[in-house]
Amino acid sequence: MAKNYIVRTIDRADPPVIAELAGAGVATAHEAAGRVGLIGPNVVARQAGSAVAGSAVTVSCQPGDNLMIHAAVEICQPGDILVVTTTSVSTDGMFGDLLATSLRARGVVGLVMDAGVRDIATLREMGFPVWSRAVHSQGTVKASPGSVNVPVVVDGAIVNPGDVVVADDDGVLILPRSTAPTVAEASRRRLANEEEKRSVLAAGTLGVDLYGLRTLLADLGVEYVDRLPGESTP
Amino acid sequence: MAKNYIVRTIDRADPPVIAELAGAGVATAHEAAGRVGLIGPNVVARQAGSAVAGSAVTVSCQPGDNLMIHAAVEICQPGDILVVTTTSVSTDGMFGDLLATSLRARGVVGLVMDAGVRDIATLREMGFPVWSRAVHSQGTVKASPGSVNVPVVVDGAIVNPGDVVVADDDGVLILPRSTAPTVAEASRRRLANEEEKRSVLAAGTLGVDLYGLRTLLADLGVEYVDRLPGESTP
Amino acid sequence: MAKNYIVRTIDRADPPVIAELAGAGVATAHEAAGRVGLIGPNVVARQAGSAVAGSAVTVSCQPGDNLMIHAAVEICQPGDILVVTTTSVSTDGMFGDLLATSLRARGVVGLVMDAGVRDIATLREMGFPVWSRAVHSQGTVKASPGSVNVPVVVDGAIVNPGDVVVADDDGVLILPRSTAPTVAEASRRRLANEEEKRSVLAAGTLGVDLYGLRTLLADLGVEYVDRLPGESTP
Amino acid sequence: MAKNYIVRTIDRADPPVIAELAGAGVATAHEAAGRVGLIGPNVVARQAGSAVAGSAVTVSCQPGDNLMIHAAVEICQPGDILVVTTTSVSTDGMFGDLLATSLRARGVVGLVMDAGVRDIATLREMGFPVWSRAVHSQGTVKASPGSVNVPVVVDGAIVNPGDVVVADDDGVLILPRSTAPTVAEASRRRLANEEEKRSVLAAGTLGVDLYGLRTLLADLGVEYVDRLPGESTP
Amino acid sequence: MAKNYIVRTIDRADPPVIAELAGAGVATAHEAAGRVGLIGPNVVARQAGSAVAGSAVTVSCQPGDNLMIHAAVEICQPGDILVVTTTSVSTDGMFGDLLATSLRARGVVGLVMDAGVRDIATLREMGFPVWSRAVHSQGTVKASPGSVNVPVVVDGAIVNPGDVVVADDDGVLILPRSTAPTVAEASRRRLANEEEKRSVLAAGTLGVDLYGLRTLLADLGVEYVDRLPGESTP
Amino acid sequence: MAKNYIVRTIDRADPPVIAELAGAGVATAHEAAGRVGLIGPNVVARQAGSAVAGSAVTVSCQPGDNLMIHAAVEICQPGDILVVTTTSVSTDGMFGDLLATSLRARGVVGLVMDAGVRDIATLREMGFPVWSRAVHSQGTVKASPGSVNVPVVVDGAIVNPGDVVVADDDGVLILPRSTAPTVAEASRRRLANEEEKRSVLAAGTLGVDLYGLRTLLADLGVEYVDRLPGESTP
Repeated sequence: MAKNYIVRTIDRADPPVIAELAGAGVATAHEAAGRVGLIGPNVVARQAGSAVAGSAVTVSCQPGDNLMIHAAVEICQPGDILVVTTTSVSTDGMFGDLLATSLRARGVVGLVMDAGVRDIATLREMGFPVWSRAVHSQGTVKASPGSVNVPVVVDGAIVNPGDVVVADDDGVLILPRSTAPTVAEASRRRLANEEEKRSVLAAGTLGVDLYGLRTLLADLGVEYVDRLPGESTP
Repeated sequence: MAKNYIVRTIDRADPPVIAELAGAGVATAHEAAGRVGLIGPNVVARQAGSAVAGSAVTVSCQPGDNLMIHAAVEICQPGDILVVTTTSVSTDGMFGDLLATSLRARGVVGLVMDAGVRDIATLREMGFPVWSRAVHSQGTVKASPGSVNVPVVVDGAIVNPGDVVVADDDGVLILPRSTAPTVAEASRRRLANEEEKRSVLAAGTLGVDLYGLRTLLADLGVEYVDRLPGESTP
Repeated sequence: MAKNYIVRTIDRADPPVIAELAGAGVATAHEAAGRVGLIGPNVVARQAGSAVAGSAVTVSCQPGDNLMIHAAVEICQPGDILVVTTTSVSTDGMFGDLLATSLRARGVVGLVMDAGVRDIATLREMGFPVWSRAVHSQGTVKASPGSVNVPVVVDGAIVNPGDVVVADDDGVLILPRSTAPTVAEASRRRLANEEEKRSVLAAGTLGVDLYGLRTLLADLGVEYVDRLPGESTP
Repeated sequence: MAKNYIVRTIDRADPPVIAELAGAGVATAHEAAGRVGLIGPNVVARQAGSAVAGSAVTVSCQPGDNLMIHAAVEICQPGDILVVTTTSVSTDGMFGDLLATSLRARGVVGLVMDAGVRDIATLREMGFPVWSRAVHSQGTVKASPGSVNVPVVVDGAIVNPGDVVVADDDGVLILPRSTAPTVAEASRRRLANEEEKRSVLAAGTLGVDLYGLRTLLADLGVEYVDRLPGESTP
Repeated sequence: MAKNYIVRTIDRADPPVIAELAGAGVATAHEAAGRVGLIGPNVVARQAGSAVAGSAVTVSCQPGDNLMIHAAVEICQPGDILVVTTTSVSTDGMFGDLLATSLRARGVVGLVMDAGVRDIATLREMGFPVWSRAVHSQGTVKASPGSVNVPVVVDGAIVNPGDVVVADDDGVLILPRSTAPTVAEASRRRLANEEEKRSVLAAGTLGVDLYGLRTLLADLGVEYVDRLPGESTP
Repeated sequence: MAKNYIVRTIDRADPPVIAELAGAGVATAHEAAGRVGLIGPNVVARQAGSAVAGSAVTVSCQPGDNLMIHAAVEICQPGDILVVTTTSVSTDGMFGDLLATSLRARGVVGLVMDAGVRDIATLREMGFPVWSRAVHSQGTVKASPGSVNVPVVVDGAIVNPGDVVVADDDGVLILPRSTAPTVAEASRRRLANEEEKRSVLAAGTLGVDLYGLRTLLADLGVEYVDRLPGESTP
């Protein structure tokens, strides 16, 4: 009943918005977005120091089968990030240096893979950044249908085609195209604000004072004592 | 019934003892201590090459809530290591570069986090070493009470406030303040002994001979054969 | 009933075959072998950039007990790779720098450990490559019998003594001695072929065309559309 | 930026459609739907023998905080199934017999919980069916905002408010309201067809013949032999 | 350095206190205790319907070695619960029907095992309740030292010898001997209170009203709407 | 290079040997075999109370693809147990009531599945026993080649075609055909011996005395004390 489609056309966010979010980074943009949209901790950066943002081209594959990744390449445009998931959890190495070569030729700036990747040494040499659930050589077949540019779930987060993907050493954030400009704007303000806080904290001001938390602690009944009374344990 | 406390005063081990344990490293000090006190393998070093020791200031938080970390900062003294746990397992990013800035201003030398950290690229640039269960950006609230300087459990190990924390690329070791001097002394002897063993082994002497294991193998009924008899499998 | 043996003599593949497989790497040799023989994704490289191949000397230990690793050292010959497993899953640090010193003195080129290793910083300095399930300092005893050079299972893969072990950043591959020459030969052809494909793909030719996948996609009923019809989700 | 809402009004599928899907069961309806929409294997039935279907009322909570479940109760209508998730993975016992009593008073027919439940013995006595990630008593607070009737992700599946939830011993299936009638219809046909197949197979007809798989096996190069040639392993 | 001890004498809580806590159950007593002391969700009931409480006799074993369980039997008194842990994580079947026979002869009322158990069908027939991390037949040796009646950690919880262990289908709770009477008293009040709440909720009163949560929701900025504005997702 | 085969002929153990091993059960036969051959704790009984033994017909499938199970049915003979694995870890529901109907028509007595099963309620009604890694409805395709009756690995254990499979509530044991008669014989003696021990232990004799462990404890330096000295922790 559910048919498989390769959707050719998606709407993308504006490049300056995407660029600003890349600069802000995952942690800041996630806070600016109201703490939503984060991919879970199982999909991790495979090269330290990468920081990119782009528009999501999504792929849904059968586990152990990378046919649809091959189909997705021509749908990508410069600045896109390929986001691949499988219909059930897999760590197979569905992506390697040849596919990276192909994506790079299309101007794709990174890969988010809810499964495994391989040829990791070559990917690092190429400087093609990947975020994945595993590094594993297990080869895959090209035998089963799937879809390109449909909504997918990657480790707990919904990714719609055209969403802005922000990815760095802290993980991967997904932002709807519609809210991305506001989040970019809020991130910029947040970065300035954090810079200021950093100076104040470095000078020795305490966070409990800076954020006014002493009243909250008192309200919550947390008691300051010199020594732990009795032998009570938490 | 269980109340939450922020305990201001803890007893710490002597700085020279702590320094000696930092130099010995986790694996050696763990052996010297009689193979006890190790935090489990889920809390791992997030910067290769760090090796520190310090006195534990402990924090117990609600999962997804870092209020008590903020409260703990002013309790810390130079040379301390902050040890944070949550009342149930969490990978949320409870700690980032602003808290690290604040801790560094207090002279804190590292963080052991039984949850997630974020801003990991900045933490590496700052050279502020962290050991954590995860790297994840998931933001946290400041809403729930908890405690500072009460006994906590971090991945299988009990940490009492003031315990000596030894941490390097091999993981994290917890030593009671009372036994730390003896363990430091035993570690020193062990290091000398290991140096000697290393030369002997490098020269080709076998461990089975050096440690006198041939008799034990015979006693245990392990048989030397040229070829595996029949087709038996272990 | 099951007895424990230390088997002194195993048959090894020819050195040039082993060298060729080391050069081909895990992902390529795995494909050349018909996508079989891979150790699972839980046993990972602990030093980026290592790439070795050698003959498997296998060890089966009680969990938390490294007696049999000591017994295995003298069985090893130059060019061997030690492959250690436990009778049930363990992350204890069964292997450290002293054992590495001993193995290196025998000419052993690497370790595959289905458990934990420690002294990881020293192992990296020594340039002794290890692939392991964990990095953990937990010390082990020398008390229980086990076997050397019997068939073992490492994270899903069968390893027979004398099998060729190929290991790099992508994981670990096990090849029977009998098929290793053919796989080495097939790997060489594959590498040449991949080089060619890389140029073609870098020039912009699509994989769907290069591999002739458009017919398969059509046969599988995958439909190209400009926009996703209705609100159907995959 | 992301605001929290309690959405009072959702559209629901027709009761006869829901009833038919409950009768068909998860495995059959999942096949009828084209093998999409399944919640992952970590959310499991906590009472053997339950089989229900209903309309999803969704809840998104902070981990360790069940405030929003309390808020969701009055939004439920007879025949609904409460689907609860947390903003990061948690096993805390967010739901017990008092909340079940409250939901039952509203006519709610079951709970799908991407976290822990407790009072499990009482829930079984009450006959209130739950599917959850864990059984754990860990208590929760009521302190943090969240949302009711927004799209959520439960172990890999997207759940929109008003989706049809089908749940039995095989797990939990999510069907969009729009496609539910067609899936119900297809399930009915499938059940009839399965009944027929069952008789044929019970009589000894082979699946390879019934499904015409012999040609496929031959096309894929699978060879029938009497004995395994050589010592090759798969 | 760390020596191993078998400690013969421990202090136990009063039998009526223990009996009252058994009746209250884990979830209620955990709340009465202020939501502390719970063993994690990995140690689960292996027989539905058991509900016991007793005094903890603790055992620390080498993984894969049950020597110290044998040593612990004679230390047990009627009404005790044996709490066994290993120095690193293990699922080996360290406990079976013979040990259960022995414990029953001593009047022990249950087992909490942070590892595996076996002979599970016989244990169920015997009605000897166990809570464990796994059911697995993997046999163990009797070769390595350990301790009886020292503090241990079981899936995140500290267990001191003589602590009150409360265990039922919801898991396992650990209460210090000193606070057990107060928790028992608080549990009794809580049970009465819950009974009352159950009636009120069954009659249709909402929890948000009963617990006065509407103000909190408003303070937290949670907004009631009829339909979700725009396409925002949580 | 690795070809896929369906091997028609395998050698089986004698029916009386198999019957005796079924009666002995997994834990006893595993001890009788010298504590080897056990499948890991991730493959668990899905019906309480089943206890069977049979000859292994093995199947290796692509994850998410059950084509080869269909091919395996006609290879089975009365008394066989089907043992299915995938080339990488999967929890997909590869097996349901129709396949069970087909296997039962061939006289197959059970299924060991290193992946998921579905239709679990019907399987229980049918009394067709399964041991599996998961219960999950996720449907599979019939598209990729694999093999029947080749050596496979199931959660850490090697299974050769024709091996004796013993399975009950404690898990699954694999015994080579050649050693099965000796293990059956040893199991019979062991059962008698256990019966005797059970009476002695039930009468209050301690295991430390029965097994003569007091000397071992003394040799290992374990010290009996009345109270724990100082505040040392293990």
